[in-house]
Amino acid sequence: MDSKPSIWVEFTTLAVECKAVNIGQGFPDTPMPKFVSDLLTEVSEHPERTDWHQYTRGFGHTRLVNVLANLYSRFLKNPVNPQTDVLVTVGAYLALYYSFLGWLDHGDEVIVMEPAYDSYVPQIKLAGGVPVPVVLSLAPNPISSADYKLDISAIESKITPKTKMLILNNPHNPTGKLFSREELLALAELVKKHDLIVIADEVYEWHIYPGHEMIRFASLPGMYERTITIGSAGKAFSATGWKLGWALGPAQLLAPLKTIHQNCVFTCSTPTQEALARAFEMDLAIIEEGRFSESHLLTGLASELLPKRDLLAKGLREAGLTPIIPEAGYFMIADFSDIDWPGKNQQRSETDDPLDFDFVRWLCRERKLATIPPSAFYSGENKAGNDHFVRLCFFKSDETLLSAIEILKQLKKKSS
Amino acid sequence: MDSKPSIWVEFTTLAVECKAVNIGQGFPDTPMPKFVSDLLTEVSEHPERTDWHQYTRGFGHTRLVNVLANLYSRFLKNPVNPQTDVLVTVGAYLALYYSFLGWLDHGDEVIVMEPAYDSYVPQIKLAGGVPVPVVLSLAPNPISSADYKLDISAIESKITPKTKMLILNNPHNPTGKLFSREELLALAELVKKHDLIVIADEVYEWHIYPGHEMIRFASLPGMYERTITIGSAGKAFSATGWKLGWALGPAQLLAPLKTIHQNCVFTCSTPTQEALARAFEMDLAIIEEGRFSESHLLTGLASELLPKRDLLAKGLREAGLTPIIPEAGYFMIADFSDIDWPGKNQQRSETDDPLDFDFVRWLCRERKLATIPPSAFYSGENKAGNDHFVRLCFFKSDETLLSAIEILKQLKKKSS
Repeated sequence: MDSKPSIWVEFTTLAVECKAVNIGQGFPDTPMPKFVSDLLTEVSEHPERTDWHQYTRGFGHTRLVNVLANLYSRFLKNPVNPQTDVLVTVGAYLALYYSFLGWLDHGDEVIVMEPAYDSYVPQIKLAGGVPVPVVLSLAPNPISSADYKLDISAIESKITPKTKMLILNNPHNPTGKLFSREELLALAELVKKHDLIVIADEVYEWHIYPGHEMIRFASLPGMYERTITIGSAGKAFSATGWKLGWALGPAQLLAPLKTIHQNCVFTCSTPTQEALARAFEMDLAIIEEGRFSESHLLTGLASELLPKRDLLAKGLREAGLTPIIPEAGYFMIADFSDIDWPGKNQQRSETDDPLDFDFVRWLCRERKLATIPPSAFYSGENKAGNDHFVRLCFFKSDETLLSAIEILKQLKKKSS
Repeated sequence: MDSKPSIWVEFTTLAVECKAVNIGQGFPDTPMPKFVSDLLTEVSEHPERTDWHQYTRGFGHTRLVNVLANLYSRFLKNPVNPQTDVLVTVGAYLALYYSFLGWLDHGDEVIVMEPAYDSYVPQIKLAGGVPVPVVLSLAPNPISSADYKLDISAIESKITPKTKMLILNNPHNPTGKLFSREELLALAELVKKHDLIVIADEVYEWHIYPGHEMIRFASLPGMYERTITIGSAGKAFSATGWKLGWALGPAQLLAPLKTIHQNCVFTCSTPTQEALARAFEMDLAIIEEGRFSESHLLTGLASELLPKRDLLAKGLREAGLTPIIPEAGYFMIADFSDIDWPGKNQQRSETDDPLDFDFVRWLCRERKLATIPPSAFYSGENKAGNDHFVRLCFFKSDETLLSAIEILKQLKKKSS
């Protein structure tokens, strides 16, 4: 097991130590939706309600699994049984852990598209599995996250008799790529042909920008029965600290996850599950009235985020970085090749950390701006060609974004 | 891995199906302390506080680890470093899982005193370890939980070169036994001699009845450095659904737990951690003023529970069962050998479930009273001699307890 501190530990600690403006880690610094926190107030005002404050159903609070089953029956175009097809977890993170630990035998291979959210590889290894990276290659002069291309033949070339699983992160972190129907249908074809399980990490499903369509993998023909769909209430309601997520799929696919759950946390927090169940009920009612689309909750996330995305992109361009505009999510990748900084053109040795690690450390220590180095999302051999970017999170107050942009613009002034 | 549904799943489901009076599962049906739920209200009324609603420090919310370190530095007579010696988890359950998974290599043996809380054995097996049971033998005509005897030589006889760990549950579930200083010192001697790690599951540390003393294992000379102390906020504040606990010990002992944590849940719920931190701060202030002892929090748990314990014991005796009075905790073991029921004196085959399983099912289905069969807390060969008891939870409203007692008394009427 990899016992190095994760990038989150290193860069979160560094950001705090440097008192940096933080547009690195993926959480909002704006208020969470008041209607959701008000629902928690209603719960906490009733200490006598044992059904809200004591142990609840282990596989998920009944009210929450009911509404999730209703929502996803609609989203996945398939009846989702609340009693058997939903497992509530401590964030999507735990659902991922269960999926790998539950399904991987020693030596089983998992196709991981890179860049990949940095928990996948250590989680797969912890489970005894072997991550098999396939790069989403970037078209020349990329403009949008759609320029990260899925290469189906590259994936197929990596499939062996030991390949058991494919992990699909859509919308994709850190690039913001939203997979097209064409790409997903090709993946579905491949998955059927090679009899694979798909882990569909769709936690950014509610953050889709205008003109784009969220297609949930399990909604494709024949895919419900081979897909574990993973979602997150922390992402849906911009309350990452509430730490509730779910794994959703046919009973037979969830069975090994449930066994681990019984030995791991057994049950999740009751008061927050009760509050979230009600929040989703309100969303469902509004979706049923046709007032919101399936990609836009009550919170109107995409409408809130779109001006922030565009503000940051403009600031980056003015500062001399080249942003790749995301179709979804709240992260943006930007190329810092044109920025003058002490590490630019410096001779590097093979034992050095990737260039972006050095840039991100320098930016944090010297300029008080915290970001994340995306090479962390690539494995060994793939880091080299992908070390001239930063990952930025724009789910931040305008004040934070403007401070960040001001710092970025100073880079240009000092270098010109 | 054992994939049978745990006893909690079977008997909780049965209780609900039968609409039974439930004095089985270990959670209060009385209100949780209002001062604690009010603290959560204060948190939920501030959706703009990102430090209360977004991701917090992975190894534990800073305010919570600080107050836990202060409290336990006092309890354990040893300086506890909040940054390195505390890991906040999703209930004590997850702390146990981490401890086994973090420390056990394939084939490592763990001494488990039986009866044992039913998560230990499957968790040890899941980690690749081998549980080695040693029975706490029951003196003839037992009156109190002190009649469950620790047999040090029996434990020592089970120690092999593969023995890595001993799990000590004190106060003990399901018996309510509180280990004496003499017993604990003898264990400490053994642990030093054979160089073992101790997992001290002390979640009922706040539920100590008058005349008894809680001695935390890590407070014994030389034991801090070999002990992972496990505690529970859900038990401390009678809010089992809040699902927060901790593992506490020297940095070197916690290191492998932290590595798994980074791949498993990464961080725990922020709003409940903030609320609990404040609740413990209030307790600490009052303990420092000398107004409460270290075994009695603000909530005065033992004072609340003592009359309930005695009420249930009296009811059991009147109904013809023989209770074993607990020194701590909120469970009671009672002998049902004298009760007439259809399974009494029935011929039994070796493939049958243990007698208490049948009794508990009959009591739930036919008499609408839900309890727990304690043979579930023994391994194979030890079940047979320990299948004539039920485990009852008396942390219930007086109304619930009186209904339960009424049902129990009917048993006698019908059998006489």
